[in-house]
This record gives sequence, C-alpha cells and structure tokens, in this order.
Amino acid sequence: MNISIPKGTRDFSPAEMAKRNYIFDTVKKIFKLYGYQPVETPAMENLSTLTGKYGEEGDKLLFKVLNSGNFLRDVPSELLSEDKIPPLTNRISEKGLRYDLTVPFARYVVQHRNDIVLPFKRYQIQPVWRADRPQKGRYREFFQCDADVIGSDSLLNEAELLQIIDAVFSELGIEVTIKLNNRKILGGIAEIMGQSDRLTDITVAIDKIEKTGLDAVKKELVGKGISDEQIKILEPVLSLSGTNEEKLSRMEEILSESETGMRGIAELRTIFGYADRLNISATVELDLSLARGLNYYTGAIIEVKAQNADIGSICGGGRYDNLTGIFGLKNVSGAGISFGADRIYDVLAEKNLFPQNSLETTRVLFVNMGAKEEIYCLRALQEVRGKGIAAEIYPEQAKLKRQMEYADKRNIPFVVIAGQAEMETEIFLLKNMNNKSQKELPLPQLLEELK
Amino acid sequence: MNISIPKGTRDFSPAEMAKRNYIFDTVKKIFKLYGYQPVETPAMENLSTLTGKYGEEGDKLLFKVLNSGNFLRDVPSELLSEDKIPPLTNRISEKGLRYDLTVPFARYVVQHRNDIVLPFKRYQIQPVWRADRPQKGRYREFFQCDADVIGSDSLLNEAELLQIIDAVFSELGIEVTIKLNNRKILGGIAEIMGQSDRLTDITVAIDKIEKTGLDAVKKELVGKGISDEQIKILEPVLSLSGTNEEKLSRMEEILSESETGMRGIAELRTIFGYADRLNISATVELDLSLARGLNYYTGAIIEVKAQNADIGSICGGGRYDNLTGIFGLKNVSGAGISFGADRIYDVLAEKNLFPQNSLETTRVLFVNMGAKEEIYCLRALQEVRGKGIAAEIYPEQAKLKRQMEYADKRNIPFVVIAGQAEMETEIFLLKNMNNKSQKELPLPQLLEELK
Repeated sequence: MNISIPKGTRDFSPAEMAKRNYIFDTVKKIFKLYGYQPVETPAMENLSTLTGKYGEEGDKLLFKVLNSGNFLRDVPSELLSEDKIPPLTNRISEKGLRYDLTVPFARYVVQHRNDIVLPFKRYQIQPVWRADRPQKGRYREFFQCDADVIGSDSLLNEAELLQIIDAVFSELGIEVTIKLNNRKILGGIAEIMGQSDRLTDITVAIDKIEKTGLDAVKKELVGKGISDEQIKILEPVLSLSGTNEEKLSRMEEILSESETGMRGIAELRTIFGYADRLNISATVELDLSLARGLNYYTGAIIEVKAQNADIGSICGGGRYDNLTGIFGLKNVSGAGISFGADRIYDVLAEKNLFPQNSLETTRVLFVNMGAKEEIYCLRALQEVRGKGIAAEIYPEQAKLKRQMEYADKRNIPFVVIAGQAEMETEIFLLKNMNNKSQKELPLPQLLEELK
Repeated sequence: MNISIPKGTRDFSPAEMAKRNYIFDTVKKIFKLYGYQPVETPAMENLSTLTGKYGEEGDKLLFKVLNSGNFLRDVPSELLSEDKIPPLTNRISEKGLRYDLTVPFARYVVQHRNDIVLPFKRYQIQPVWRADRPQKGRYREFFQCDADVIGSDSLLNEAELLQIIDAVFSELGIEVTIKLNNRKILGGIAEIMGQSDRLTDITVAIDKIEKTGLDAVKKELVGKGISDEQIKILEPVLSLSGTNEEKLSRMEEILSESETGMRGIAELRTIFGYADRLNISATVELDLSLARGLNYYTGAIIEVKAQNADIGSICGGGRYDNLTGIFGLKNVSGAGISFGADRIYDVLAEKNLFPQNSLETTRVLFVNMGAKEEIYCLRALQEVRGKGIAAEIYPEQAKLKRQMEYADKRNIPFVVIAGQAEMETEIFLLKNMNNKSQKELPLPQLLEELK
C-alpha cells in the first residue's frame, strides 16, 4: 500500500510542532504587543476572488476545488477538450485554496467594511497553498504570518512595522538587516530616464544587480530597448554607496526634477528618522535595488535578510495605497509585513537557535508498577496536574526498562517511581533523567521540586 | 462586484478569534497537562488515503482538488460524460481536503511508524472540510480538537480521556453529562438475540429510542425482519433504569451467555471504578442506546452532552482496536476523543460563559496630539511594551473625539493623553475608559498602574 502525502506538503511531528509553535508564538506575542488583532479567513475562497490577482503565472498555481456532485451538468461538450482547459476549469470549479493572506484580507475588509473600525490593525497566521514545483525550502503548503494596518497614511505605521520586525528577530536571536526602498523613488528614476511606462522592465533589471552585476544589468536594459544615454542616468543610482543619508542626498540631486522621486526621498527620511529615535537594533539599510511586489506597493518596500545565512528574504512588506481597490473599495491605504515561518525555521535550525525547552513537553512520568501502585500514583498525579505541571502515568504495568526508555525517548526530564517500600513510607522516588540524581520525597516536596 | 466566501465557510473577526482561541487554548492546555503532544497534517491528502474510509456518503462529501495543468491529458474521451462522474473524478483529481483528523492520523502513524514511541499520545487541532449541505450550526469548514492514545490496551487510557473531558468542561464552566457505552455489550446483545450479523440494524434502531420511543424502535426492528421473540430479549435492555451499577448488574444477567458481552461489562466496571477514584465531577452515565461510530469503535463509546442546552453531542470518542489496519498496520489499538469547537462555542455563547477579558486585546492607547507629543509618547510606549503590555499609539494626529471613539469601539480599557502641559511636567494623563476616572502619573507609576 502506498502511504504518502501529496508532494510539497508536510506532516509536523511533535518535535517540529514545538519548534514551529515557538516561532508562531513569538510572532503572535509581538503582533499583540503592538495592538494587532487576529483574523482568520477560510481555506477556500471563491475563484472569482483569487483569479487575476497574482498575474497569469499565479492563476496557474492556484489549487482549484472540483465542484461537488455532477460537475459536468450544463457544461457544453465543446469545452471537454485538452485545448479548452482554462474555460473548462471555470465551469467545473468555483472555489480555490488561499494563495496568500493579502488578497483574502482585502476581500475581508471590503466584505466587513461596516464592522471594521479604522485604522484596522490585523494579524493573520495561516497556511497558504501554491501548485509550485516543490524543491528544497519551497512547499505547496506553507505558512505565512502577516500583519497589516489599513486606513492610515501615517508613516508611523511603517516605523512600527520596522519595530515589529526588530522585536521579533531580537526575540528569536536572529541578526538581521532590514532593507528599505520606496516605490516612489523607483518611479522617479524611471521618470527622469523618460521611461515612466517602462518602470517594470527597469526595476526587474535593477533587482538582479546583486546576482548578475552591473554589466549584465546594462545589457538586459539595452535588450529592452533602453538607450545608452538613459542607462547613463541610471548608472549612479546603481553604484550608490555610503550611509543611508549619503545615498539619500545623492538621490536628491539625481531626482531633483521628479516630484514623485522627491516625495519618496522625504518619506524614507521620515522613516529612517523614526527608526533612529525608536532605537531599532537591526541594521536598517537603503537598498534601491529592492523592487519586490512592485505592482502592488506604492510607498515603502521592506525586505529582511538574516545575516550570515544563505537564504532569501525571511520577511517582507511595504505600503500599498489601493489594496481593496481590486474589490471596489477605493482609498483604503495600508502597510503590512509578512514573516516566512518556514525560512525562519530553517535559519533557527541552521544556527541552532531553538531554545532547549521548546522540545520538552511532559515534565514528569509516573512509572506504573502494578494495580496498587497505580492507585497510589494516580492520586499524586492529579495533584501534580493540579499545579499545572504536564504529567503522565505509563498506562500499562510494563517492564521498568521499557518505561524508562519511553521517558528517555520522549525527553521527559523527571520520572517518579513508587513501589511497596515507597507506599509504606508515603514517599515518592524522583529521578532526574538528565543528571541521573534521585531523591525520596513526600508529596508536598515532590510538587515543590517539579515546579 | 460580488464579494463573498463559499457557503458554509466563515471569516473569524477579532472578537470571534478571541473567543475561539479561548476554547482552543483551554483544550490545548488540558491535552498538554495529560502528556498529549501536538501533531499537524496537511490540508490536502491523497484521495487514495481518504476514499472509502467514510462510507459511500462520505466519499461524496469529500472536497476534491483538481489536478494542475492539463488535467484531461490521457483521460479517455468516453469518461467525459455526466454518467461517468466517479471514474472521471478519479482521473482528474488525485488530492482531497481532510474530512476528519482520524484518518489522517492513522495515515500519519503508519507512515511514521519507525519514529513513533508507543504508547503515542497525540493531539491535533485543525480544520476539516465536508461538502455537506450547510445549515445552522453545520459548516463546510469546521474545527476538530482530537486527542488519541495508540499502542496501549489499558483501560486507564479511557479513564484518562474521561478526566480530560471533565477537566476541559470544568475549566470552560459547562456542566456536562458523559455517556458511556461499550461496543462489546452491543455485540453481546445481538449475540444473545441470535442476530450477530444484524448488529448494525439493531444498534441503528436502539440509537433512536430517545427520539422516537420504544414502540417506534420495535416497529423498525420488525421491519428489518427481527422476530417478536428476539425483540422480547431486547426489551429489558431498552427499558433499563437505575444507577450505573444496577444497570450493569441487570445486563450481567441478560448477557451471562455471551462472552463478548460479559467482557464489555467488565471493561465498563473498570472504567466506572477509575472515574469514581479520580473524582470526576461530571455525571458519568451508562447509556446502552449510545452507538455512535459503531463501524469503528471496538470497546468504550463516549459521548458528551451539555446539560440544559438544546444541542447535540459536544464531544465524543471511544476505543478502536484497528485504526491503522486500513493502511496495513495491524494490532495497533487506540482510544480517542474529539471536541467539537463550533458547538462548544455555541454553548458558551448561549450561556454567556465567555470570560470578559477574552475580548480585551490592547490594554492602552496613547492619543496622538501632534509631532512633539508623538515623540514624547513613543518613548513611553516603548517602555509600556517592554513590560509586555499590549499598547498602541493612534498613528495620526486626528481629532481627540475620533481617537477616543477608536479606543471605545476597540474595547481598549485605558487611554493616555499627553499634551504641552503634561510634557512640561513630565507626566501622563491616564484615563480609565470603564469608570471614566483619570490620574496624572509620571512614567514609572504609569507602568505600575497599567500592569
């Protein structure tokens, strides 16, 4: 029998769950500390909600749910053909699995607009599904942890998102660099190049500079029909260096003719100012090559990289001025970030940063020596649990060796043994599984010791 | 634009999330206290894992995920017909959404059998999906909270499950009756009626006695071809009354010729004995009409009803001797329970049992009076958050009235106001939103007051 799960999906065993919950709990704690409130949306959305929101490629990666019952009813027979897959899919499937948390959130906001108090700060931690080709570190079911604030233009929101990023990674012990850019600056650059309508081509090329180098980027731009002269304007932008303020001053000169560009610079100055004042401990760095989610962000663009780790971005976000516009609700500006739980997991594992106690679940196992001893132990067990201490009794009177092995394999740090002798003197033998020490204790002291 | 979600699914707003998390957190806390460990499985399973496990009706209620890409490739054209829906579905869909947590857990155990330490106590809290007709209290996406222990025959496990049920509902403040039965007793009844092969018909009929009464049950049995004589044997079983021990004694007489039946009685006696000794506060009651999940349970059958609430069972479970047999792994016995989070939610809501503070999220809002005041408040805000107190600053310098309304609508219990006067004397004005009192405090006292 073939026992398996769909490729790109995972089971999470108790040890993995403990580590994952450590990440989720940390993120949640910080989100709450900053006044963000939880929301959850269904795994399935109407395909009309999802389709067209992630580009053509994204549409292909949506998992679609087959309609129940006779899904061919009323489907014209000419659609039943391999060259009619998209229209046929439309007829036999009206629901799809959530592809990210952003579009469902936008849908949520529009649907519940009369109940929402603005500004609305929400967080959402749920799995998303993409029919991507699975590979190392890329899954078909993975988890996003999003925080967004909508209904406020204030740049204080961006600053707060940086604080949240800083707090989360400080708490997790991961040293990070927060990279910042602003879509308005990218727009300004395209503008002074006289290529406002080619913004996407330009930023896609710029985005590759770290990977491929200046020459390759130039070549790509030439290939896209951008003239040498125009590329010359771009060149100083690409080779910008110095502190954030030095970079901004230089950009101020370059973009002096672009109103949009100058607004982008002013916005970034404000955000850097907040970051200084709020004592953000992570490095916050202007990176003009940062262009993620360009079709989407309208102001700040944020990306977080773990220092000394060979992994992509572990958190990202930005400002969007028209999130809910796709669902007909105009003028709702917002800013948000998304933590990639799976990559953060990999960084913590690689750097051995998971706390030891996140693996410990049950604190004490009562060994089961027989019917009378079981009664004796059950009473103590109830008292132990009454103190909020996770405890178990081995459910069967098995060999002592087997019970000790169970405690060992389960990482249970304490074992209680009580046989005839202990029962007569009303004590319990407490074994410390780590240092192998043991103590004979009456119940009140046992409870003290286990706390 | 039609903005909606698929029927039978729900969004959970912050207020609902707080209440739901109160339930999940309570259940989780108790599960952990008893040594159960978390496991999660993917939303999608291979259809080969799910199909045939829930009966013919269940197969129809599975949500099936359409294969990606050209799903018609290699599909014979004769299958593209409304009267070929099941075989066509098989060809164009190989994955389905989880229908419950039990079958995925069985699959998990078999797949990971070499890594699991027996006895294995796992809990799992995840949504499941069923293409049922949505109606009040019945959803297409709903949440189950399961705890199972496998690899141990000991009846102590059943007793512990009763303790867990008792602890969860005590903690939630819901008074419940735990109904107990044993599949072996039902088997014994069919045996002495000479109708062992008709066990399902008999128990389906018995199951209805509360709803339809004795006469209707008799009529149904006659309709199924059970003779009057055989029904006479059943009659005393159906009209059993008295204490649990009185009922068991009477059953002992009736079933004296059935070895299976007598074993069922002995098992129940042991479990009732544990329940007495462990001071279970809920009423634990023998109910021979209890036949849920009959095809599945082999020993104890458990069902929990809220007292004085017009709602079905809010928790159920039992002993199964062959959970993993469907996936080829024999002789793994287990026992488990499942809490129905949605029904528990309804009971808590109806009886007004949700704790007040589960609605409170942010503890204090700093009013934003302008640029300088913002800087003054941001410093205090950081200190407040540093104490682990959830706090916000209104992101914009809006009218005071609007900011106060925000605090009010969000149920934020404290508001801090600091203007020119407060800045000069380095104090903060703290308003209590519930009793409208206010205090002028320097930062250290403010922190004290908010804790």
